[in-house]
Amino acid sequence: MPQLASKDVLRADQFSKDEIEVIMNLAHEYEGALTDGRTLNVMEGQVLCTLFYEPSTRTRLSFEAAMLRLGGQVISVAEAKSSSASKGESLCDTIKTVEAYADVIVLRHPQIGAAKEAAEATSKPVLNAGDGAGQHPTQSLLDLYTIQKEKEAVDGLTVTLAGDLKNGRTVHSLALLLANYDVRFLFVSPGALSMPAKIVDRLREAGISVKMAEDLAGALRESDVLYMTRIQKERFDDPSEYDRLKDSFILTRKHIEDARNGVVVMHPLPRVNEIAEDMDDYSGAAYFRQAANGVPVRMALLALVSGRA
Amino acid sequence: MPQLASKDVLRADQFSKDEIEVIMNLAHEYEGALTDGRTLNVMEGQVLCTLFYEPSTRTRLSFEAAMLRLGGQVISVAEAKSSSASKGESLCDTIKTVEAYADVIVLRHPQIGAAKEAAEATSKPVLNAGDGAGQHPTQSLLDLYTIQKEKEAVDGLTVTLAGDLKNGRTVHSLALLLANYDVRFLFVSPGALSMPAKIVDRLREAGISVKMAEDLAGALRESDVLYMTRIQKERFDDPSEYDRLKDSFILTRKHIEDARNGVVVMHPLPRVNEIAEDMDDYSGAAYFRQAANGVPVRMALLALVSGRA
Amino acid sequence: MPQLASKDVLRADQFSKDEIEVIMNLAHEYEGALTDGRTLNVMEGQVLCTLFYEPSTRTRLSFEAAMLRLGGQVISVAEAKSSSASKGESLCDTIKTVEAYADVIVLRHPQIGAAKEAAEATSKPVLNAGDGAGQHPTQSLLDLYTIQKEKEAVDGLTVTLAGDLKNGRTVHSLALLLANYDVRFLFVSPGALSMPAKIVDRLREAGISVKMAEDLAGALRESDVLYMTRIQKERFDDPSEYDRLKDSFILTRKHIEDARNGVVVMHPLPRVNEIAEDMDDYSGAAYFRQAANGVPVRMALLALVSGRA
Repeated sequence: MPQLASKDVLRADQFSKDEIEVIMNLAHEYEGALTDGRTLNVMEGQVLCTLFYEPSTRTRLSFEAAMLRLGGQVISVAEAKSSSASKGESLCDTIKTVEAYADVIVLRHPQIGAAKEAAEATSKPVLNAGDGAGQHPTQSLLDLYTIQKEKEAVDGLTVTLAGDLKNGRTVHSLALLLANYDVRFLFVSPGALSMPAKIVDRLREAGISVKMAEDLAGALRESDVLYMTRIQKERFDDPSEYDRLKDSFILTRKHIEDARNGVVVMHPLPRVNEIAEDMDDYSGAAYFRQAANGVPVRMALLALVSGRA
Repeated sequence: MPQLASKDVLRADQFSKDEIEVIMNLAHEYEGALTDGRTLNVMEGQVLCTLFYEPSTRTRLSFEAAMLRLGGQVISVAEAKSSSASKGESLCDTIKTVEAYADVIVLRHPQIGAAKEAAEATSKPVLNAGDGAGQHPTQSLLDLYTIQKEKEAVDGLTVTLAGDLKNGRTVHSLALLLANYDVRFLFVSPGALSMPAKIVDRLREAGISVKMAEDLAGALRESDVLYMTRIQKERFDDPSEYDRLKDSFILTRKHIEDARNGVVVMHPLPRVNEIAEDMDDYSGAAYFRQAANGVPVRMALLALVSGRA
Repeated sequence: MPQLASKDVLRADQFSKDEIEVIMNLAHEYEGALTDGRTLNVMEGQVLCTLFYEPSTRTRLSFEAAMLRLGGQVISVAEAKSSSASKGESLCDTIKTVEAYADVIVLRHPQIGAAKEAAEATSKPVLNAGDGAGQHPTQSLLDLYTIQKEKEAVDGLTVTLAGDLKNGRTVHSLALLLANYDVRFLFVSPGALSMPAKIVDRLREAGISVKMAEDLAGALRESDVLYMTRIQKERFDDPSEYDRLKDSFILTRKHIEDARNGVVVMHPLPRVNEIAEDMDDYSGAAYFRQAANGVPVRMALLALVSGRA
C-alpha cells in the first residue's frame, strides 16, 4: 500500500503506478460523494493556503472547492506578487511563515523549481500548481483521470497530443504520466514546435510507440483521444510559417466526421480559438468535464498528503 | 406557491408579485435569525462562487456573508479581469468551468446582458450582481425590503426618486419593481437627466401615477420615501448647467425641516457628497440599514434558487 | 477579571497588565489546542471581515487562520483601495456598511488614526492591523508572547532593539508594551535613526533603564533578546552615512559567537538582508516561531473582543 501522507506533489513523473491507482480510485470515490451530494468531513479542522504568484482562476478555485468539499477551510493569496514578495522577501521566508498558518500549501509560481524550493523549506505538504515552464502535476493527474473515465481503460489507447508540443508543460507531463500505461502516441505539431527529443527518448525507452506527424486530420482517423493545445504566433521565428499552419491546428466539427468513432477531445483550458465553438455539443468533447474532474482529483491529493485518507 | 428553485435572478422585473412576497417573507425570517444570533445550516455543504469582473466590495461581501450565515461556503474571484479573461477566455467558457466548482454563481460584469449569457451557459443558478448599465436585481429587492421594513406597508406611499434618473440602473429597476404596488412616484432630476420615457410609459401603463419635477425641497413636502442618487458632472453636455444645479441635489439636514414627517431617506451607496454627513443621525436616514438589509435578502435568494427553502 | 468584550484593539499601550496577562494565557491555551490538533468552535457562527487598504499577506493570513481555527468564517478585502474607496467613499461609510456583514473587523490602513476613526464609526469590535506609521498592536502582543515563550519570564531580561528605531512603529509599540515589565533596554541604531525622545522619556518615567548605543556586537554581549529591524537607505539625509553604517546592522552567525549565551533573535518580517541566512539554523533564531505565534495571539484577541472567552 503506497504511503502519500506528508509527501509533496511536485512532478507528474514522481508517482509509481500503484500511487497513481490509489489517487485515481480515491478521486473516483469522492466524485461519487459529490454526485450524491454527500457532505464529507475528511479535512475538518484543516486549513489550506493557496499561494498564487501569478493568477490562475481555474486552478485556484478548483483546489479551494476541493478543500471546502472535504470539510476543510481555505486562506488565499490570489496575487502574491503584490505583497510580501514586492517587499523583497524570499520565497523560502514566505513559505516558512505560511506553514504556521496552514496545514497544506498549494503554490503557483512563474519560476521553474519554485515548488521544489518551497517543499524543501517546510515540513508541511506542498502541492505544485504550476511552476512556470516546469511542471503542473495535478493537471496531468486530472487529464489521466479524464481519459480513464471517458474510455474506461487507458491500456490499448492511441493518444494524440496536438499543437505546440515544444513549449507546453501540460503535454510533457501528461506524456510522461501516460508512460505508466500501454498507450501509443501520435505527436502532431508544426516541425518547429515538436515534442522535445528528451521526452520522446524517455517514452521510447519505456517501450512506448511514438509517431510524429504534421497532419491533424490524418491523426484523428486513428486516435482514441485527442489532446489539443494552442499554437501561438510569437513562438515562430518566421511569421509566414505561422500563417501557413495556424488553420490546420484549429479543430472544428468537420474534423470529427472523418475521425475514429468516439474520439475524446481534451484541452487544458482556457481555449482561445483552437477548438471551434461548434465542437462544444459533440458528445466526445470532454474539456469541460475534464476541468470538472479537477475537483475530485485534487480532493484525493489533499486528503492523501494530509494523511486523512 | 411560487417555485424559484434552479431559477436565475437576472432582472428586477422578472418576478411575479407572489414571488416577491416569498422573497420578502423569507428575508424577514432570516433577519430574525441574524438578530437572535441563531446559526443556520440551510446551505450546508453548498459552495457559492462570487465572480466579479469589476470590483464591488459592498455587493461581494454582502453575498459572501449571506452564504456563510446560511452555513455554506464561498470561493471567490474578486477581480476576474486579471485572470482567465485576460488570457482571452470567453465568459461562457469561464462559466462552464466554474459550474463544476460551485453550486450557485454570483456574477458582476461590466457588460449589459452578461448575466443572461452566463445563465444560458450553465444549469446552475446565476445571480446577477450588476451587468453594467443593465440590471442589479438584488439591489432592487433589498431596496423594496427596506421600504417595507421602514414604512410597514408599500401600498399608498409616495416615493421620490432623485438625482441622475437617466443613467442610474438602480432607480430604473426599483421603479419597475415598485410597479407591483400601489405607489405614487415623484421623479426629481435635472431636465437632461430625467427618467427615460420608456420606463415612465411602462409605469403609467401599469396605472401608476408619475410626476416629474426639478425641485427637491418641494418634492420632500409630499414624500414618504426619498431615494437619492448622485449627479455627475461628466453626464452634462453643458458644464455650466451642472454648476447651476449641483447644489440643489445635495441633501442636507435643512431639507428635512420642511419635509413630510418621517420621510425615509435611502441611497444605494457609496455616496460622495450628495447626502451631507449631518443627515446621518436623522432617524429616517435609512441608507446604512438599507445596506445591511442586503444580507437577509441575499440569504433568501440564495436559499430559494438552491431549492433549500 | 478584565473585561475585553466589545472592546477595540487600537494601540499596544491600551492594555493594563492584567489584560495583557489574560491575552497571553488564552493564547497559550489556544496554542496547546493547535498543537494537539483539537478543533475549536469558539467563534462558530461568527464572521470576521479583514479589510486591508494596503496588502499585508502575513498579517491578513494570520488573522484569517486564527478565525478559521476558532470555527469562525471570514470575508475579506485584500486590496480595498481598488474598490469602494476609489469611488470616493469615506472610511466611515465603508465601516458602517461592513459592520452589517461581519461581527468583528480587522483593518489595515496606510493612515495614522484610521483604526480609531473606524472604531468610532461602529459598535462592532475593530482590531488595528497597522495604521501607517501609527500602531500595530497585535504585532506587539505576539512579540511579547514570543519573548515570554522563548525566555519563560519577561522580568529581568535585557532587551535590545536594533536598526531603524526612529521610524519603526513595531519597536515603538513593543517598547511601550514591555514597559509593563521589569526589563532593561539597549537601543542600538545609527544616531540619525535613534528612538524618539518622547518614547525614551515615557520609559524612563516608568522606571525602565534605557541605554543607547551604536555598536551591535557590544550590545549582544549583554542581551537576552535582540529585536532586529531594517535600516533603509532612503531614511538617511547623507547617503555616505548609510554606506558607512549598513554593514554593522547586518546580523550574521559571527555575531552570535560573542553574544550572551541563548540570546533570542527576533524580527517582525519580512526581512531583506538584515539577518543573514546563516542565522536561520541558530537555535535562538526565533523569527519564524514569532510569526507563527501570531495565530494563537490573534485567536485570543478575536475570542476576547467577541465575548466568546
